[in-house]
This record gives sequence, C-alpha cells and structure tokens, in this order.
Amino acid sequence: MCPSKIPDGEERGWIIPIGGAEEKENDRAILARFVELCGGADADIVVIPTASKLLRTGPRYVEIFNDLGVGRVDVMDFDTRRDADEPRRVERIEEATGVFFTGGNQLRLGTLLGGTAVAKAIRICNARGTHVAGTSAGAAFLSEHMIAFGEEGPTPIAGMVRLAPGLGLTNRFVIDQHFRQRDRLGRLTAALAFNPFAIGIGLDEDTAALISPDNTVEVLGSGGVTVVDAAGLQFSSMAQVDEGEPVCLLGLSFHILVAGATFNLHTRKASAGALLRPKE
Amino acid sequence: MCPSKIPDGEERGWIIPIGGAEEKENDRAILARFVELCGGADADIVVIPTASKLLRTGPRYVEIFNDLGVGRVDVMDFDTRRDADEPRRVERIEEATGVFFTGGNQLRLGTLLGGTAVAKAIRICNARGTHVAGTSAGAAFLSEHMIAFGEEGPTPIAGMVRLAPGLGLTNRFVIDQHFRQRDRLGRLTAALAFNPFAIGIGLDEDTAALISPDNTVEVLGSGGVTVVDAAGLQFSSMAQVDEGEPVCLLGLSFHILVAGATFNLHTRKASAGALLRPKE
Repeated sequence: MCPSKIPDGEERGWIIPIGGAEEKENDRAILARFVELCGGADADIVVIPTASKLLRTGPRYVEIFNDLGVGRVDVMDFDTRRDADEPRRVERIEEATGVFFTGGNQLRLGTLLGGTAVAKAIRICNARGTHVAGTSAGAAFLSEHMIAFGEEGPTPIAGMVRLAPGLGLTNRFVIDQHFRQRDRLGRLTAALAFNPFAIGIGLDEDTAALISPDNTVEVLGSGGVTVVDAAGLQFSSMAQVDEGEPVCLLGLSFHILVAGATFNLHTRKASAGALLRPKE
Repeated sequence: MCPSKIPDGEERGWIIPIGGAEEKENDRAILARFVELCGGADADIVVIPTASKLLRTGPRYVEIFNDLGVGRVDVMDFDTRRDADEPRRVERIEEATGVFFTGGNQLRLGTLLGGTAVAKAIRICNARGTHVAGTSAGAAFLSEHMIAFGEEGPTPIAGMVRLAPGLGLTNRFVIDQHFRQRDRLGRLTAALAFNPFAIGIGLDEDTAALISPDNTVEVLGSGGVTVVDAAGLQFSSMAQVDEGEPVCLLGLSFHILVAGATFNLHTRKASAGALLRPKE
C-alpha cells in the first residue's frame, strides 16, 4: 500500500501519531489541537476504538471530544472484516473532517481493517484533507510499516521486532509509542536496520508528532519525540546475525525533539524552532 | 583530575570497562582477555571489591582469576580513606600488571578512593602500562566524569542524571553500564548534554569496551556497546529546561557496536572491522 495520491490543488490532511496515555482530564493539549485542526465547532470526528477490547474506550473519547466542543462525533467499531466494507461506514468516513484511532492492539486494526473499503476510504480522505490521529496502537497503525510487536531494551537484537503492513498514510516513517516508558529504542532501530529508507519516530507518552501536510513534524505534549535517522548508515550486520544476537549498526543519527522543535521528513533536518528563544 | 601523563617512550595500559554481569562460569571471554593482556601466567592482578558490600565478591574474583591461570592475584579492600593512603598498598598497586574493580556502588569508590595515594598510583601506573578493568560500578568509576546515579528511560530528562568525578584514567568518555538491561540511553545523553566534549559509551551486560593504548575501542562479549557522539550537536536545551522536563538535543549520532566492530576515540569513526567478512 503506497500512500494515496494527493489530488492536484488539494492538500493532505495532518497525520498525528500520539505516544499513548495522552492527558484526557486536565491539559488536553493534544486532543484539543486535533479538534482545532478538524474545524473546532465544525469538527466532525469518527472515533475508531477497534484496537481496544474495552467497551468504554469509544464512548470515553466521544465525551472528551464533545467537551472540547466538536460539532459532531461518532464511534465506529468493527467486529468483522465485513463491517469494514459496509458502504454506509465508508460514507460516514467521507463526511468526517477527522478520524481518531484509539489504543489497544495494532494487530486488531491490521487484521480487521487492512485492505477493506473503510481503510481505503481513510487513505483517500487523508490525501484530500481529512486529518487522521491515532494514539498508542492507533499511532503505530498509521504508517506503511508498522511495528506489530517486539521486545524492550535500547540495543537492537535480531528478531526482537516484527513488522507488519499498517494503514499506509505515509511510508516515510516507522512509529513506536510509549517510547520512554517502555524502552523501545532497540526495537525501533532494529526496524530501521532492515532498510534505512524510513525514519524512526519514537513517541513518549502524552506526546504527539504532528505531521503537517508538507511533512514537517511538530511536537506537542509533555514528553519527547526521538527521531532516528538511518540515512547515513555505514554498516548494518542485520543480514548476517542470528536471532537473539545484537545487531551492529554504524552511523545512525538521532534527535530528541520536545514541544517547539521540528523535523522535516523531506530534508531530514531538525530545528530547535521556538526553543531558540529562551524562556523569560 | 586530568589523566596521568604517559611518560615518553611508554604506552598507557588498556582501560576495560565492562557492562556488569560478565560471564563467570562458562565462556569467560572478557575476564580471560583481561588476564591475557595482564600477562597470562605472569599476570599479577589486584582485585578491588570496595564498591560491593558483599564479603564474597573479592574472593570470588580471586578464584576465577586463579582458574584462568594468573601468576598472582590479591584482594585489596578499603574500609576508610586512611587505608587508601597506606604506603604498602601503594607498593602493591605498583607491582601489579592489572587492577580490577568489581561492581557495587560507584559512590563507594569515589568517596573512599577519590584523591588518595592509591587512586593516584592507579592513574600513574595505568599511564605506564598497567591495565585497569572494572565491571558495572567499577566501569563507571574509570573515567573522569562518572554517572553517579540517575533514572531509567530513553528520553533525556533534566535532572535525571547526576555526575560525579571518577578515577580519571581518561576524560574522553562517559560510561554507563547494564545499558540494555536497565534502559539508560536517556541518562547517558543527558550526561552528554551538559558538555558534548565527551563520548558516551553504553555497555550492555556481559560486554566490554576494550580501550587500547591508542584509544581504539574494541568490543568483546555477548551484547552491544552503544557509542553516543555529541560532537555534531546542533542544539541543546539543557541550559533552559526545568527539572523533570525532557531535554531537546538535535544532531546526535550513535553507533551500536558488537564484537568485532571498533570505534576510534580520536577520530570518532566507527568501523565494522571483522564484521565486514560475513560468517561462513
């Protein structure tokens, strides 16, 4: 699945992976920014809670988005792949200004939605301007190459990460979430070691990477975003190591971005942005 | 404490930080290599178990080094700073071909040995060819800037790491140990964020960075060595963030070295070394 083509004269919607555990009670900066992008009082949001098995997940986000003053918000859940081919659901996606994937297990999203009419509609709508956000498992699912599961630890180990195809809104990055909280540098770099084309984005909890229509990453939230760029990779031993052995990777670069800093996915340049003006 | 000057025509001894939990029963590759460097059957090793509070720590290493065929090995423990100014202990250090610091708490090493005659003797002897190894806390202690304690997690947070002066055999690197097992990338990069002069070396357990007299790092053991090089740092927000906030760091580079790969601390270049010849 390549990303859907952006029609001439139109602009892709924002893609907003969130590291999980975003603040839902007090300073809901990330969810508020999503609502604002989607049109504020005119926002029309579809919440897809399918990654989660908790019945409360969908309704909770509906409450929050209503609190934040959206015009309309609905839950759309999927129990079977047939649900995801239903024309009325496709229409509902086409009406929305924003789609939000909750956390849970990203393989539930992949297995239930992958290749369906709803998945296709979300990709086409995003290419035409609909904003798509996801938190935790929902964040992992947004990209072309998704980390399905893996082990913890900062050193990459052969076999520690399993990739699966994701929704494919973009193929420029591989996302990992709960980054600081679950110690995932190793599995993210292991994911890049297969093919350094993509950029690794490690999202701390309560932290979002807002990816603008022109592919600039902005950071919002209380944690950091670790950008791992393997473009300068000099050597990877991935093709020659046995399962369980550490992988030799030379020449990686990385940036820790916090709110205010940016990273351009085209030029692969980081900028301190607003941080260059020290606080008063 | 700057590193002791190497006398003309002499060569510094090896400096061997080990990430902790080195194999002691079966394939004792790291300890065997240390014994070999120290002279094998002619090796004369002093074990300093002072970081540990366990009485068994010193005798256990004596047993292991005897098993590995050294000529002579003694435990030298320190209960007070006065012990560390005793001339006979200084003489014993001067006789040794190798000094080995066990694990435990690196602040016990700093508080009991820092600035004493024995510490000075170890630095002078290393500059003249005596090899010095340390595992876990013993590894942290070897360098000029030592990580005294800190918090876990891959994203650097202001205040998460506390530095203290170490033994000062070299000031080229800052060492962190149990790297993969205790998730310490954040605190290591936080340590570098203060001043990117030094190179960060994160050692997995059962893994050693063997630092040769000409400052080339070789890797030995079953894990990886993460080398973090902040020389290209474009921006650090360390001076402007509050305690507990994530630190923005742009333009870091890193390498994951495994056995066979090398890193030159002068040129800051990594090499795949023996790994360029794939296994049969």
